[in-house]
Order: sequence, then structure tokens, then C-alpha cells
Amino acid sequence: MTQFKVGDRSISFEPGVRLVASSTVVGPMEAAGPLGRYFDKVLPDTKYGEKCWEGTESKMLQEAIKTVIQNANLQERDVDVLITSDLLNQLTASSYAVRERPINHLGVYSACAGFAEGIIIAGMALCGGFVGKAVVGVSSHHGSAERQYRFPMELGVQRPPWAQWTVTGAGAACLSSPAADSPVVTRATLGRVVDYGVKDAYDMGVAMAPAAADTIEAHLRDFGLTGEYYDLILTGDLGRYGLEVLRQLLTRRGIELNTQLDDCGALIYDPNTQDVHSGGSGLGCAAVVFNGYILKQIRQGRLRKVLVVCTGALHSPVRIKQNESIPTIAHAISVEVKQG
Amino acid sequence: MTQFKVGDRSISFEPGVRLVASSTVVGPMEAAGPLGRYFDKVLPDTKYGEKCWEGTESKMLQEAIKTVIQNANLQERDVDVLITSDLLNQLTASSYAVRERPINHLGVYSACAGFAEGIIIAGMALCGGFVGKAVVGVSSHHGSAERQYRFPMELGVQRPPWAQWTVTGAGAACLSSPAADSPVVTRATLGRVVDYGVKDAYDMGVAMAPAAADTIEAHLRDFGLTGEYYDLILTGDLGRYGLEVLRQLLTRRGIELNTQLDDCGALIYDPNTQDVHSGGSGLGCAAVVFNGYILKQIRQGRLRKVLVVCTGALHSPVRIKQNESIPTIAHAISVEVKQG
Repeated sequence: MTQFKVGDRSISFEPGVRLVASSTVVGPMEAAGPLGRYFDKVLPDTKYGEKCWEGTESKMLQEAIKTVIQNANLQERDVDVLITSDLLNQLTASSYAVRERPINHLGVYSACAGFAEGIIIAGMALCGGFVGKAVVGVSSHHGSAERQYRFPMELGVQRPPWAQWTVTGAGAACLSSPAADSPVVTRATLGRVVDYGVKDAYDMGVAMAPAAADTIEAHLRDFGLTGEYYDLILTGDLGRYGLEVLRQLLTRRGIELNTQLDDCGALIYDPNTQDVHSGGSGLGCAAVVFNGYILKQIRQGRLRKVLVVCTGALHSPVRIKQNESIPTIAHAISVEVKQG
Repeated sequence: MTQFKVGDRSISFEPGVRLVASSTVVGPMEAAGPLGRYFDKVLPDTKYGEKCWEGTESKMLQEAIKTVIQNANLQERDVDVLITSDLLNQLTASSYAVRERPINHLGVYSACAGFAEGIIIAGMALCGGFVGKAVVGVSSHHGSAERQYRFPMELGVQRPPWAQWTVTGAGAACLSSPAADSPVVTRATLGRVVDYGVKDAYDMGVAMAPAAADTIEAHLRDFGLTGEYYDLILTGDLGRYGLEVLRQLLTRRGIELNTQLDDCGALIYDPNTQDVHSGGSGLGCAAVVFNGYILKQIRQGRLRKVLVVCTGALHSPVRIKQNESIPTIAHAISVEVKQG
């Protein structure tokens, strides 16, 4: 009965779940970065006509969902399930984005690993024959995230050099089954909650690196692959410091990646001209880099096999004040162009 | 390919996903209520040796998960996926409960509809052949929920008569496929986000009643059933006021339930001796009433067909301060004893 279970941690979607369409909405700062030209829509400012950032984030997510449905040449009623995630307490951005929409909704949370978690659940729903079309949409917003997780921006608290910048962005993907066309999601590896004891709410990239190493190792083991199988192994939002820690952790575990290892948070901003310290973070980071930049590279044949490892810091400001450390998780999905 | 999709909103798990085992952990007040004897474990006090309620809630959830795995005669390593949910910002209780456990984890959020959402995702994973064993565990705690959503209890703010009491409880279910034995989860109907404009953070039951009506109507329509098909239609945590509103909404929609309609929040406390106003609420409410009381009624043959409609208020204190109303959702699962 468990014909799609692989090893301890993984599942196979063979022949694959098709990525029909994608969409991205970003803020002005993300548009000014090196990947700016790959994004579908750029907000004129960080408020976007709303009185508060929480409202802006919902509006961005709503637009990303609307756009991906259009890009897939579908109507809202054709979508059997919409899976969303965001960082705001009680999935606030999600709940208000889909409020009163005639669409079945599942909310998921694994912090910035939410995009991959959504794809995994959508993949099971599609591949298992429970739905015909699914949309996964996620978002983050610098303003709403900073005041919730750290300090209100107006306070002007100095950020340490290892801090990351929460991406203002929403990304969505529309998936269908069967895999009539490329690219397809072929495999997934589920995360486990890892905690190496980091207590600094600015040091998310380093906190999450062990979870990424754990999931990459499990993925390669479960499928009997070496790192070279992939053209690119791309983590979600470790930033430059976190990426360096991940490289070291993988080396210690005997995993030498000749393949390219990179991170969405290290790619999205220009460190020379944009004051973001270690790089980008947030659910929007992996979602817009993957749905904007990477998927276009795949569609144009520049990449054929990519492992996307979305990393999440399951950070609770309340627990940090109670002297607790930050649990983390990473979920991985592989996206491939099928031969033939 | 969509052999398990039914109507617009529903899925079928035929022949059904087996409910192998369940577990419940409750606080002293829940144990003192009319269902007290049905719960597995009772905490000696609301702190349970922890310094803060967030820690207590994690410990309760951890015990519910550990106990359900024991009750199913399994080891932790036999469980392919653990799906959890709770009410604390960023799924705090969940993340700390499963931290450093060697178990694949998916976090879900639909407020107090989280138990049903977890069962739906577990059902798809099992029935689709992606996993062999799944555990769904959820929790809530009166102390941690009150200070996050409303006021710290120490402040002694007077609660209006329509307020509900967040249940201190954790419940877990272990599921497997195929359905070798009863009881089984046979059907599910996915919720949509409904908002009738309620802005009172104490009036959750009334806010959620429209979502429950919407999902019950969709369920009966999708499967071509009348309410009499079920021995019991049980909502999660509407409380007495919310249940009354639900009855009226169903009548207006032409749905006359000769079948028994009841609510976990209305059942768990004794209104004559326990000062809980409209009844119980919280993720733990449906989880302990279902896994403790209802499932035992089913196993003893007193109930054969039950529709469990978990109701969630997607309430954000930040958005309420911004003059927004409360979006709500309800997910339904049907649990049956198979003939034969």
C-alpha cells in the first residue's frame, strides 16, 4: 500500500506532479536586487495602499494566488485546494487573503519551510487522486515580520552583521496531475525538528543550517543519490553565514557537493549595494526566488534537476524570552525536467 | 486520476483509513467535567512542573503523542509522519513538543479546526500510499491561550456570558491504511474561509457557526446524504450559543437534522457547576472529546456513524486591533463502524 514511500524520510511522486504555472509579487527592494527582472509584479511601495503591513501582506498573497490561477488558464472554481502559509501569528496573512473566496483551504506552518511543505501536501493530494488542481501560495513582509519577531522598525534597533532581511514577497505555484509536461516535482523529503541551541533571534541562518544538512543527507540516502545528481541544491533562506555553516556541516557528514550549492537568501539581494547583512529570509524568499528565477532557468533548459530545501526557524518570541532556543526544520522537494 | 475527489469540496477515503489508537491528556478542570472518566491522563495542576504554560502545553502534547504511539503498539520509528497543530503563535507548543524527536513532522494551522485538517492530510498520505502509519496530535491550554488572544488571567478581566473557556487538553490519533478494522475515517469535506463580520474576540462560537453550517451543507450535498445518515453530527467548539446559531443557520438553509447535533464545547464542562459561560473551546476541546469520549462510544457500538466538524476562528489579535473581523473555517471528517 505504501508504494510512494521511500526510505525513512521521503516520498516519490513518480511520474511526477506537474508545475503548471507560477507567480511572484515583490516589494521595491527585492525588485532592485540582482533577480529583479524575474519577478511578475513589483509593488510601488511597502504599503501598497493599505494602512498596515499585515493588510499589505494579505493583498500581496491574494494577488500572487489570483495571478497564478490566471497564468494557469484556470478559474478559481477549477482549483480543488489552496494551501497557504505565512509568518504572521495565526497565519494572519493567509486567512485574510483567502477570506470569503470560494476555494477549499488548508493552512500549513513550518516557518520559512512552508512553501515546500505546501508542495509536499499538494503533491500527495494530486498524486493520490484526491484533487485535480492545487495551488500553493506563501508570503512574508519585512515590516510585519520585524515588528512581530524582533523590534518595530521605527525603533531603529541596530541589526548585527549576521542578521538577515525578511523578504517582502509572495509566491504561488499551480500544480496538476498527471505529469503531462515538464517541469515536475518528482521527490520530497520531510523535515524533522532540529535544535542546535541557537538563542539569538537574529541568527536564523546559522540556527537553520543543521536542519538543512539533516534533510539533504536524508534525501540523498533515501534515494541512493550523490549530490552530483542535482544541477543545483538550493536552500531557502540561510543567508551567506548560514550557507557557509551548511557547507561545513555537509563536509563533516562526508557529503562533498561538487554540484552547485546555493541559497535563495544569498541570491536575492546585492550585498554591495543593498544593506541586508547576511542576505534575505522569510517565506517569500524561497517562494519568489524559486517561482521567479529558478523555474525560469528550468523552463529555459539551463537547469534540469534542482533540489529545493526550504528552511524554517520555528522561532517563538515568547519562548525566546523564556530562555529557550530555536527549533528548526527543513523540507525538500526535487524539481526536474523529464527526459524525452 | 481524481478517483477520490467527490463534488466540489470533498474527498473519499474508501475503504477508509483506520483509527488504530487514540490518547488524551487533560487538565484538572476538564477531568472534573461530565466526560472526566473518559480521558487517559489528568494533570495534577495547570503547570505540570513547568515554569510557564507554553512549556506545559508542549509537555502535554508530547505525552499525548508518546501515549498514542504506545497505545497503537508501535515505536516512534514506525510512525512515518507526525502532523501537529496548536494555537500558540508560530505553532510553539508543537515545535517544542517534537523538537529533536526522530520523526517526520508537518505543522498545520486552521485554529481549532486543526485536528480535522491533520486527519485529512494524514488520510490522503495513508490512502494515497505515501505513508504507512501517521499520528495527528493537537493541543490547547487555557493559560497560554488567554494571555495570547485576550488578557493575562492575572488581570482578572470580566468575561462576557457568551465567552468560552479554552480547554487545557491534548489529543492524538494514530491512523493506518488499509482499513483492516473499525473504526475508519471514510470521508472528508474541506473548509473554506467564511467571515460574517464578528469582531468580538470573546464571541468565537457565533463567529464560527456560519463556517460549520457551510461545511455541513457542502458535505451532505457532495455525498448526496441527508443529515439522518449520521447518528451524530458533532461540531468542535461552538459552545452553547454558537450551537444555537448553527441550528438556526441550518434551518434557514433547509437542512433539518433529525439526527443528533451536538458540540464538543457544549459537552465538556458542566454548566451548573463549572463557571465556563458558553462552554469549552480550543484545539484540545474537539481533540479530547473525540479521542476520549466519542471514539469510545463508537468502539462500544453506541454510535456507528459520526460526522466531526472541527471549527476554527482564524483570529488575529493584531488584526482585531486594526478593526478587522474574524475569519473562520470548518473541516469535517466522518468516522464510521464498517458493516460486516
